[in-house]
Amino acid sequence: MSRVRKIDHVAVAVRDVDEAVARFRKLFGIEPVARELVASQHTEAVLLPIGESHIELIAPRGNAGLERFLDKRGPGLHHIAIEVRGLGEVLAALRALGVELIDQTPRVGARGHHVAFLHPGAAGGVLIELVEPAPEP
Amino acid sequence: MSRVRKIDHVAVAVRDVDEAVARFRKLFGIEPVARELVASQHTEAVLLPIGESHIELIAPRGNAGLERFLDKRGPGLHHIAIEVRGLGEVLAALRALGVELIDQTPRVGARGHHVAFLHPGAAGGVLIELVEPAPEP
Repeated sequence: MSRVRKIDHVAVAVRDVDEAVARFRKLFGIEPVARELVASQHTEAVLLPIGESHIELIAPRGNAGLERFLDKRGPGLHHIAIEVRGLGEVLAALRALGVELIDQTPRVGARGHHVAFLHPGAAGGVLIELVEPAPEP
Repeated sequence: MSRVRKIDHVAVAVRDVDEAVARFRKLFGIEPVARELVASQHTEAVLLPIGESHIELIAPRGNAGLERFLDKRGPGLHHIAIEVRGLGEVLAALRALGVELIDQTPRVGARGHHVAFLHPGAAGGVLIELVEPAPEP
């Protein structure tokens, strides 16, 4: 059985979060449901809900990799986050397959979720984040 | 009320569709639900289901823009498709707002759906496709 549940979010790299929020409001009438400084990733993140998923606007707040992305490509699609059941087991299975991981074990990302990134080379050029919501307290 | 329903798909530009299908099968156990030569877009497209959405693998079959994308950036995230209610009305509203559209009116895309692309400049560097399923025959 697949452990894949849904697309949690599609991340868009932006320089100006407020401008991007205003743009998506104008285009589609979408209002943010969350805005957060994500200390572990050195980013600011805003979530725009679409169905069971979100567009996540991310701007660097000390994240050198994201700064380089913006310098090189400009604003645009950055990564896709897939919600899975049992993130630890999924990472172990991927490691056993020889898949290159950026995060060997889950860490805490936006919304307190457990997250781990695969190396873009592992998914044919696509940066993939795996996400599992933290258990309810 | 928002006319936005869900993320229909996130498109990933690839050179080798078979290799990409095998890769997503290995990584996540996902099997394609559709494979199609999309004449109107000069692409080959494969849909991989994830929750209510899909990853769409697209390879050029005469699409010069997609060839250029692959030459310049390599395989990777290409566009995001949002399902809307009333695509014609949505396009008219966007035009009235001065939003730059690639397709002024809906055309037929993969799965026979009605589709229209916004200019990437309209969404801050993100290529957005709007999609509305064709009415049942």
